[in-house]
Amino acid sequence: MSPAAHLLDTPHHDGSLRYLSQPHPRMGETVDLYVRVPHAASVTSLHVRTTHDAEPKFTAGVVDRHTASDTWWRVPLVVHNPVAHYRFLLQGGELGYQWLNGTGMHERDVPDAADFRITTYDPPPAWSDDAVVYQIFPDRFARSASADARPTPDWAEPVSWDTPVAGRGRRTGRQLYGGDLEGIAEHLDHIETLGATVVYLTPVFPSRSNHRYDATTFDRVDPILGGDEALTKLAAAVHARGMRILGDFTTNHTGAGHEWFRAAQADPAAPERDYYFFDGDRYVAWLDVKSLPKLNYDSAELIRRVFDDPQGVVRKWLTGPDGLDGWRIDVANMTGRYGAQDRYHDVARRMREAATTARPDALLVAEHCHDTSRDALGDGWHGVMNYAGFTRPLWTWLRHREYAPDFLGLPVIVPRLGGRAVMETMREFAAQMPWVTLTHSFNQVGSHDTTRVRTLVGDDAGQVDVAAGMLLTMPSIPMITYGDEIGMLGEFGEDGRRPMPWDAAPGRGGRGGTDPAAPGGEPPATTPGGEPPLWDERLHTVYRDLIAMRRASPALHAGGLRWVYADDDVLVYLREHPQQTALVHLARLPHDPVRLPAAALDGIESGCAAYGPGLVVDGDEIVLSAGGPHVGVWTWSPRAQ
Amino acid sequence: MSPAAHLLDTPHHDGSLRYLSQPHPRMGETVDLYVRVPHAASVTSLHVRTTHDAEPKFTAGVVDRHTASDTWWRVPLVVHNPVAHYRFLLQGGELGYQWLNGTGMHERDVPDAADFRITTYDPPPAWSDDAVVYQIFPDRFARSASADARPTPDWAEPVSWDTPVAGRGRRTGRQLYGGDLEGIAEHLDHIETLGATVVYLTPVFPSRSNHRYDATTFDRVDPILGGDEALTKLAAAVHARGMRILGDFTTNHTGAGHEWFRAAQADPAAPERDYYFFDGDRYVAWLDVKSLPKLNYDSAELIRRVFDDPQGVVRKWLTGPDGLDGWRIDVANMTGRYGAQDRYHDVARRMREAATTARPDALLVAEHCHDTSRDALGDGWHGVMNYAGFTRPLWTWLRHREYAPDFLGLPVIVPRLGGRAVMETMREFAAQMPWVTLTHSFNQVGSHDTTRVRTLVGDDAGQVDVAAGMLLTMPSIPMITYGDEIGMLGEFGEDGRRPMPWDAAPGRGGRGGTDPAAPGGEPPATTPGGEPPLWDERLHTVYRDLIAMRRASPALHAGGLRWVYADDDVLVYLREHPQQTALVHLARLPHDPVRLPAAALDGIESGCAAYGPGLVVDGDEIVLSAGGPHVGVWTWSPRAQ
Repeated sequence: MSPAAHLLDTPHHDGSLRYLSQPHPRMGETVDLYVRVPHAASVTSLHVRTTHDAEPKFTAGVVDRHTASDTWWRVPLVVHNPVAHYRFLLQGGELGYQWLNGTGMHERDVPDAADFRITTYDPPPAWSDDAVVYQIFPDRFARSASADARPTPDWAEPVSWDTPVAGRGRRTGRQLYGGDLEGIAEHLDHIETLGATVVYLTPVFPSRSNHRYDATTFDRVDPILGGDEALTKLAAAVHARGMRILGDFTTNHTGAGHEWFRAAQADPAAPERDYYFFDGDRYVAWLDVKSLPKLNYDSAELIRRVFDDPQGVVRKWLTGPDGLDGWRIDVANMTGRYGAQDRYHDVARRMREAATTARPDALLVAEHCHDTSRDALGDGWHGVMNYAGFTRPLWTWLRHREYAPDFLGLPVIVPRLGGRAVMETMREFAAQMPWVTLTHSFNQVGSHDTTRVRTLVGDDAGQVDVAAGMLLTMPSIPMITYGDEIGMLGEFGEDGRRPMPWDAAPGRGGRGGTDPAAPGGEPPATTPGGEPPLWDERLHTVYRDLIAMRRASPALHAGGLRWVYADDDVLVYLREHPQQTALVHLARLPHDPVRLPAAALDGIESGCAAYGPGLVVDGDEIVLSAGGPHVGVWTWSPRAQ
Repeated sequence: MSPAAHLLDTPHHDGSLRYLSQPHPRMGETVDLYVRVPHAASVTSLHVRTTHDAEPKFTAGVVDRHTASDTWWRVPLVVHNPVAHYRFLLQGGELGYQWLNGTGMHERDVPDAADFRITTYDPPPAWSDDAVVYQIFPDRFARSASADARPTPDWAEPVSWDTPVAGRGRRTGRQLYGGDLEGIAEHLDHIETLGATVVYLTPVFPSRSNHRYDATTFDRVDPILGGDEALTKLAAAVHARGMRILGDFTTNHTGAGHEWFRAAQADPAAPERDYYFFDGDRYVAWLDVKSLPKLNYDSAELIRRVFDDPQGVVRKWLTGPDGLDGWRIDVANMTGRYGAQDRYHDVARRMREAATTARPDALLVAEHCHDTSRDALGDGWHGVMNYAGFTRPLWTWLRHREYAPDFLGLPVIVPRLGGRAVMETMREFAAQMPWVTLTHSFNQVGSHDTTRVRTLVGDDAGQVDVAAGMLLTMPSIPMITYGDEIGMLGEFGEDGRRPMPWDAAPGRGGRGGTDPAAPGGEPPATTPGGEPPLWDERLHTVYRDLIAMRRASPALHAGGLRWVYADDDVLVYLREHPQQTALVHLARLPHDPVRLPAAALDGIESGCAAYGPGLVVDGDEIVLSAGGPHVGVWTWSPRAQ
C-alpha cells in the first residue's frame, strides 16, 4: 500500500448543519446544500443530481463564498420524495467529471448505494440528539435488599453475586443473580456521574430465562425485578435527574411460554393462532429456536393488539409522565419477514405511530447486524444498532494481535486490519443511511451480545481508551454496556453478562478494588497477559472525561464527519459544526508523525486540547504523533466564513 | 496506477450455469452454488452468507473437486425469500477473511449492494435467452409505396427521404418521412441476414409527433403507419421467419392529445380525471413537458383499463398468434412514482401479469438510465435497458479523444477513461442486479435517444468494431439501433433518427453506396476527420459476423462473465458455459502484450478463433497483442472437470 495522503484536498459534503440549510425538510421544501471544495481541486462547475421520482435530475450550483483554503458551492435541492437521494457532479481542470457521494470522490460512474439521502419523516426526539446511553442487563447490574424476599421462579437457579457466569451450557439462561429495578435505582448516581443521559434496560417482562427475550407476557413487569411499580419508580427517578429510560421489545417473536402462544398452541381455533406461523403442530421460530415462536404480522388482530391498543405493549409502557421514553427493538431486521411475506416497513411505521401516539418524543432504535440500507430509512425506527458500520470495523482495528473473537454468528474470526480499511468500512456503511438515521443510531464497542471490549484488546488496557475515544467522538448515539466503563471482561455475549462488581469500586473497600486476585469474574483463559482489575478506576475516569467532553462539544455530538487521514495505526477525522470544529486523532500503536497543512484547518491555532496533549505546530504544519495507544481531541471555533 | 495484473488467480462465481445447479429455483428449493478458487488463493474454508428473512445466515461449503489450476467449492443455498441475496466468506492462509461478491474479493466488510442475487420469479421467455434485437424508429426505417396515398396529419411536415434531419428545433418532432410498417415488412431480409432475431418498434400508436411517445390513443395503430392491419401483417411476416416483434408502451404518461386526457381536461367529473394528477387546471407532466401528462396509478380504474382489460393496451396487442411478443416500457423508472406515491413495483407486477396472461412467453424490458438495483428485481419487467452498466462505461472507453458527446440529460460531457474504470463500472452495475435480470436486459451501444456510435468514436471506424465486439460478446441481450450496422451518424438522439439510406446499399447502385459525397444525411460538423460513407458495407459485415458468432456460441449467449484483465487500452474477459469457454480480447489502441498463464485456461489449446486472429502461445503463456482497435474471440470446450 502506498503511503497514506491526507484528504484535506478532497471536496466534502455531509448531512450535518455545516453542509445544509435544513436537516428536516417537509415534502416540496427546498434545502440549500453546501459543498466545500478545496482550491487544489480546481473545480469549475458543480451540479447536484437527485433522483426525482426515480429519474436523475441535475441542478447547477453557484459559488457561495471563498475562504483562504476552500470554495464553498451552494446548490438548491427540492425535496420531492420522502427519501431524496442526491450526489454531486464536479467538473474542472483535468477532471473529466467526478461524482461526490457518501464514500468520497469517484472518477467513474457509481451506483446509487452511497448517494447522500435526506428524508421528510418527522425528526427523532430532540433529547436524543446528544444522548449517551447506558445499557443494563437487569439481572446483573445491581441487587436491592428487596430481592431477597422474592420467590424463585421454577426455571431459575439462584446464585450469589460473586458466582462466575456460566457462559455456555444448560445453566447459561438459568443462573439468576437477582439484580432488580430497585437495585438500578439505587445506583443511578453511578450512571449520572459517568455522564450517561439514558438508561436502556434489556427486557423486563416475565419470561423463562435471565435474558428475558422470551417473554411470557407483555402486560406486566417481571415480579422478580420488582414488578410494574418498580419500573414506574425507576423511571420517575431517572426522569427526576433529567435523564431518559428505554425498554426492550422483541417485535419478531415471543417466548414459547407467552400467554398468546400457549392459547394458540392449545386451541387451533383460538384467536391467537393467527399471531404465529403454524403448520399443524409445527411453527416457525426465530432461527429455529423452538422457545422463540415468530409473530405473524399478516394478522390484523396482532397488529391491533401490539400497536393500536392503548393497553398494548408498545403504547402502554410509554404512557404517562413516568412511562418509558422509547424502545430498543430486538431482532428488528427480521420482523414481519418470512419467505414471501415482507411487512417490515409496515410494522416499523406502525410501531413509530403507536409509540409517538403514546409519547410524542419517544425514541425507537432497532437491532440490526448487517447492511441497513433498505431497512433504516427513518420511516419507522429512528435508528439502528450500528454493529456493521461501527462495532465490526472498530474491532478489526483494535482486536488483540493474537486474540481473535467471534462476532454475532460469524463462522470465522474477525480479521485485524489497518486504519485505511477501517475508514473505508465506516464510511461506506455510514453512506448507506440518511444522515438523520446515522446520527440517531446506537454506536457501541460491544453489547450484551458480544465480546467485551476489555477482552477484545487483550493485555493493553490503553486500547480500550482508543475504543472509547472513537465511540465518544463519532456521530451516532454512543451506547455503553454496563461494566465496560470499569473494564469488565467477557469472551462473548453471555460470558460478558457478569454481575457489576460494586464491592470492588474504590471507596467500597473489602473485596476487589484494583486487586487482580480478587474473587468473582475470572478473566477468561484466552485473554493474553496478566489479569486486569475487576474495577479499573483509571478507565472509569477515561470514560467520564470522554463523555463530559462529548456532551460539552457541539462538534462532537452534532457535527459532521470528515475523514482526514487513515493509515495502519492512525485515524484522523474532523467533526464540523457551525459553532465548533473538532480534530480527532486516534492511534492504536506508535506511528510516524502525520503532518497536516494548518491553512486547511481554518482557525485551528485558536483552539484548545479537549482531550490529550496540546497541538504541535511546525511552521505551517500541524504534527500529530503517538507513542502508543492515543486519543487526542482539539477543538476550535471556525472563523466567520 | 500500477501495471495491471491478470485476475486469473482470483476466486470467481457468477449466476451462470457453470456456477450454480439451477438458475430458476422455486421458493424453498436448494441450489448448489459453485466457487472456482485458484490454488494460488490458498483458501481453507468457504461459507455462503445469505440473508434469510433479512438475517445473515452462514452455511459451510465443501470441496467438490480439484482441477490442475483450481479447487471448486460447493455450497447449498436454500432459497427462502423471493430474492435471495448471497455472498461468500473465504478464509485461509494470510487472508484473515475475504468476501466474494459481485464486485470481486474484499478484505473488509462491505454492504450488501453487490451481493449475488437469485430470484424465484418465473423465468423470462426462453426465446429471449439468445435474442439479438433490432430497434426501428418506424418513421425513418423504410417507406412503402402505400405511404404516398395516405393523408398527412395536421401536426406533420412531410419531407422527402433524403431531407436532412432537423435535430433540434420546432421542426424536430414534426418532420414526417413517411416510413411505415409495410416498409419494414419489405426489409425483413436485411434484419434477418444481419442475424437479429427480434424486431423492436418504437411506438406505433397515433400521436402528434414523429416519435409517437405522446399517444392520442392506445386502441389502434397509427393509420399513417398502415393501421392495425399493417401491424398484424408485419408481426405475421416476422413470426414466419422464426423471429419476434416487440412494441413500445409508455406506462408513465400519455400525450396531451390522448382521448383519456382530453376527456379528463374537458370535465372534472369525467371518470378519466383520476387517471392523471390534476390540481384545478394544472396537471403533472413528464419532466414538466405539458404535452406528456403523467398517469396516476392510484386510480383503480386506470389499472383496470391498462392492465386487466383484455382489450386494454397491454393485453390487446399481445393477443393472438400475430400479436406482439412483448413490450419495451418507456420511462419505466418513473412509472407509478410521484412524490410520496410509489406504486412502481405494483405497476410492474401488474404489467407482467397482464402481459403473460395475454401471451405466456411475452418479454418486458424497461427503459432505465441509472442505478437499477431497487427497480430491476425481475418481479415485473424481465430486464432493463442497461444504459448505466453498459452504454455509459463503453462510451467512456471508446469516445473520440476530442469529441465528447453529452448523454441523456447529463449536464457535462462524458469523460474518457481507461479500461480499468470501464471494467469496474460494468462489474459494479452488473452486481446490482440478479443474474437473470442482467442477462435479459438490453445492452446497447446507443439508441434512438443517444449519440450514434459511429459519431461517438470519431474518425476511426475501427472503434465501432470494438463497440460492436463488446456488445456481442457480453451477457445481456444486444440491441442494435437500425442504421448502426451500416455506420449511420448522429450527434444526439433526434439527430441520429435519420432515414435508412437504402439507396446507398451495395447493389442498389444510383445514389450513395460508399461515396461520401452522396446526398442525404450530412455527417455532423463536429465529427473529426473525413466524412464516412452513408452505408459502410465493411462495418455491416463486421456486425453480421459478430452476431453469427454470438448466436452459434453457447458461451457468448449464455455463459457467465469472468473479468481477466483490464488496462487503459485493453480489456480481456472469459465467458464460461458448461459446454464452451470463450476468451474475449478487446483493444481500443495498440497495447503491450498481455501474457496469461495457459494452465489457468484449461483446454484453451484445443480451441479455435471465433473472431480475429489465431492464438499466440509462448511457452506456457498465451500472448494477446493488438496493433490498433481489435476484437479477438477464442472459443474451446473445457475439459471434463
